[in-house]
Amino acid sequence: NEETFDKQDRDYFRSYSDIAVHEEMLSDTIRTNAYRHAILKNYENVHGKIVADIGAGTGILSIFCVQAGAKKVYAIEASDMVEQTRRIVDENRMSDRIDVVQNKVEDVVFPEELDVIVSEWMGYNLFYESMLQSLIHTREKWLKKGGLMMPSAASLYLAPFTDEDYPDRLELWSDMYSLYKVSMEAMKPYAQKCIASRVIIRSISPESVQAHAHKVCCLDMKEVQRADIEKVQNKFEFRCFGHSEIHGFTTWFTVDFPGGTSLTTSPYSEGTHWAQTLLYIDQPLDVEQDTLIRGTISISANPKMTRYLDISLSYRVGEGPVYHKYYLMNDWIT
Amino acid sequence: NEETFDKQDRDYFRSYSDIAVHEEMLSDTIRTNAYRHAILKNYENVHGKIVADIGAGTGILSIFCVQAGAKKVYAIEASDMVEQTRRIVDENRMSDRIDVVQNKVEDVVFPEELDVIVSEWMGYNLFYESMLQSLIHTREKWLKKGGLMMPSAASLYLAPFTDEDYPDRLELWSDMYSLYKVSMEAMKPYAQKCIASRVIIRSISPESVQAHAHKVCCLDMKEVQRADIEKVQNKFEFRCFGHSEIHGFTTWFTVDFPGGTSLTTSPYSEGTHWAQTLLYIDQPLDVEQDTLIRGTISISANPKMTRYLDISLSYRVGEGPVYHKYYLMNDWIT
Repeated sequence: NEETFDKQDRDYFRSYSDIAVHEEMLSDTIRTNAYRHAILKNYENVHGKIVADIGAGTGILSIFCVQAGAKKVYAIEASDMVEQTRRIVDENRMSDRIDVVQNKVEDVVFPEELDVIVSEWMGYNLFYESMLQSLIHTREKWLKKGGLMMPSAASLYLAPFTDEDYPDRLELWSDMYSLYKVSMEAMKPYAQKCIASRVIIRSISPESVQAHAHKVCCLDMKEVQRADIEKVQNKFEFRCFGHSEIHGFTTWFTVDFPGGTSLTTSPYSEGTHWAQTLLYIDQPLDVEQDTLIRGTISISANPKMTRYLDISLSYRVGEGPVYHKYYLMNDWIT
Repeated sequence: NEETFDKQDRDYFRSYSDIAVHEEMLSDTIRTNAYRHAILKNYENVHGKIVADIGAGTGILSIFCVQAGAKKVYAIEASDMVEQTRRIVDENRMSDRIDVVQNKVEDVVFPEELDVIVSEWMGYNLFYESMLQSLIHTREKWLKKGGLMMPSAASLYLAPFTDEDYPDRLELWSDMYSLYKVSMEAMKPYAQKCIASRVIIRSISPESVQAHAHKVCCLDMKEVQRADIEKVQNKFEFRCFGHSEIHGFTTWFTVDFPGGTSLTTSPYSEGTHWAQTLLYIDQPLDVEQDTLIRGTISISANPKMTRYLDISLSYRVGEGPVYHKYYLMNDWIT
């Protein structure tokens, strides 16, 4: 029946993406080394301590914690990946120090309180499919007073951007005449609308950023409450860097670790697998030096499908008309 | 409710992919020029004739037919793309010659019999999400005796291949130690299994092909019956080109047009957006010059979800053990 088919379907999908996801994350040396250096640098806070690694995956962060001297690490992973996690822990001869637990983190009963919670919980656009709600739950229930969160803070940034390839992409429709002697100018407005219909994950150059970034939110991981992240809403104001065409708004994020290290997905820094999140607008905005763009961004879990994000954007140039744009982030396009 | 959400979901997806799909198809000059040249070369068979373009999309094939002198073209397109098709037809001043019809082709009542049916119906692996069943239906019901099918024939080929990047991809797990001082050799068997779990669409080099290709099927578009393509099954025998490691089997296809032009997705020819279809096997096969690989391939519509393909493969090296492999092609990985 349909249900059996769907299950089979998902199993097939999962089994390929499982490896592709881990290949991507571990090949991302910016990400993995940020955690490695942060954990090793926090040697004094980790040595002899009880640690939980939330969403452990291959278990690499748990292993870093043992390398930093952790007494015990609970590596929590809900998926069937745990079979591989256990093999990797054995291969590294750490099975006496790392307990691999297959469970949803909300349902885990830890045998003791935690000194440290480490997690690589960040999704695209920081919040997409993120484990943040589960993480807060674990912190509230199991972290000792004075315990450590790694990372300890997370910030989301927003800035207008220009896409140098945008004119070429539309120009394709003009090229149809020279290629095939068929006119397709009529496709351009439709193409513009389509391009702006979805959240895009892609790396942009630092030069594409057209104003100083605005900090949409800054979460203190020890303090943030579940209600705080149900809806993140914030006003922004940008003064443009010069004459250009704005094709949309881009977000990136930074997480900070205790002791001063951090990991950023900013276009000004070396690229990560998160790239940047691009929210294209329907019509480019022509701006000059110091042109004012004001607006509001709001990011919340979709009420029906909580893994998905509703992103609302309103913006205006100077005293011009206010534009509204809504994106359902239920997937992304690269 | 869920249903509303799903619909919204699909609409969002569709609107981005709609443009991306057409960008890809029209940027594929091998594909589009094959049709253009075939239609113009068949000037005598198209001039003054009644044509149907099945799955018209942007309408470019319909326009080529008018350029070749067609009296009337029925451009059949089921999706909302028809709004754009009509604009493009208007822009090319062909609205008196091209009737854009939004309907499933099975439900179209043509006002007259057809002299020519043109269609770009081929999917990945030839049969994936293809419109072939609908096309046969239209041919049986509406094509005049002696009428023309464009393309007039389609063939699917199979060959064993070697993937030069395969060792590197697995080697990533050995690299973990030098990168992060964490051993992950244990991931290799799992990674191999995952890589082989899905149908991959990717271009391979001519040098990757390790034996003369076997023709799995050859469909005469005037004769092929719906029952013929419900299940395409065929035995194969390969004699390997030399010492190498076989990582799987690849398929490609060729379609022929009346008058001698053709379009191929072979790795020996210039690349198209179809690339090649790769069926990875769980364990590479070591072969020498003239090593015999025998087996059977079977491709059929999934009985529950007819847009999807069931692909079964059995193969053996010489007198060695027979391996069986099943793929559900419900999507593809690039």
